[in-house]
Amino acid sequence: MQALKERILREGKNLGNGILKVDNFINHQVDPHLMYACGAEFARRFASVGATRILTAEISGIAPALMTAMHMHLPVVYARKSKPVTMPDTVYLTVAPSHTKGRMVELIVSPEYLSNGEQVLIIDDFLATGATILGLIRLAQAAGSEVVGVGTLIEKSFEGGREALAHLNVPIESLACITSMDNGEIHFAD
Amino acid sequence: MQALKERILREGKNLGNGILKVDNFINHQVDPHLMYACGAEFARRFASVGATRILTAEISGIAPALMTAMHMHLPVVYARKSKPVTMPDTVYLTVAPSHTKGRMVELIVSPEYLSNGEQVLIIDDFLATGATILGLIRLAQAAGSEVVGVGTLIEKSFEGGREALAHLNVPIESLACITSMDNGEIHFAD
Repeated sequence: MQALKERILREGKNLGNGILKVDNFINHQVDPHLMYACGAEFARRFASVGATRILTAEISGIAPALMTAMHMHLPVVYARKSKPVTMPDTVYLTVAPSHTKGRMVELIVSPEYLSNGEQVLIIDDFLATGATILGLIRLAQAAGSEVVGVGTLIEKSFEGGREALAHLNVPIESLACITSMDNGEIHFAD
Repeated sequence: MQALKERILREGKNLGNGILKVDNFINHQVDPHLMYACGAEFARRFASVGATRILTAEISGIAPALMTAMHMHLPVVYARKSKPVTMPDTVYLTVAPSHTKGRMVELIVSPEYLSNGEQVLIIDDFLATGATILGLIRLAQAAGSEVVGVGTLIEKSFEGGREALAHLNVPIESLACITSMDNGEIHFAD
């Protein structure tokens, strides 16, 4: 998606070690019109997968997932990283390593909002190693739901996430695919 | 706002001790069309305050703040509760008690996205004691910004948040104002 790529080139910062800072428009400050456009693009790409619900992980997945949900007229569920008092005693919980936090985090979904027979579209900000998305997939499977697609704003293809998800045999769409961040540069796939 | 009140009456759960569960459409699963409508209503109510930026707190403030930001054509910044590696070493940080977590949480904003002379509109999901919103106000003031309004989806007027914010002399708008949750019931202001 050209608008996202241009924004990354203009305002993204390559901090080294594969860390891309996009805090200016995705991860801390958010550009709502860019997110709206990204949501529309995801809705277009996943129009035919038959999704009944969108699943993401707090925190940075919420903005793109919400906008996608709006365009697809679906509810969106965000996995919590700690269990609030409003959740029932028994929940779906898995753990996944967090790239930016340098530790394991919990991903928790209430059975109230993810149940047997749902067709789940996963939307998140980054596809890097795929660890968070694999966690969301385990939650969906624990609930008896089927994952029908995975969409991320930015893919870092050199971290192997797409290969880690290949066994799912579902469409994997990223709106900007970065193939290399060596030498402080940012290179996109064609 | 009638649509929000009706949704709370239909799907909200009074868990006792002043805890309102709205996980079905705000706090875990999100209804994007309801959030879109709430964002439009905030934009209408705050059209004349001269806001240049919207500030909220992760996690549950993100959805209403993002939709308000879209309608007002403004960037939105969400205060983080832990400092990611992408943030600069020096940040604005305050602590505030979390109602639903039963402990103090940190609220952190990078000086990159909140600076001197901004006119900040604060949007969040709940106005209860006002503790989180007072924390956001401290962050804005630390940055040399001025708070020009406070909007929340749901106010629990019996917890005193509005009084705690009165010294600001700015418009405080809630889209659904609950005056009592005694005896398992939910009563709204007229």
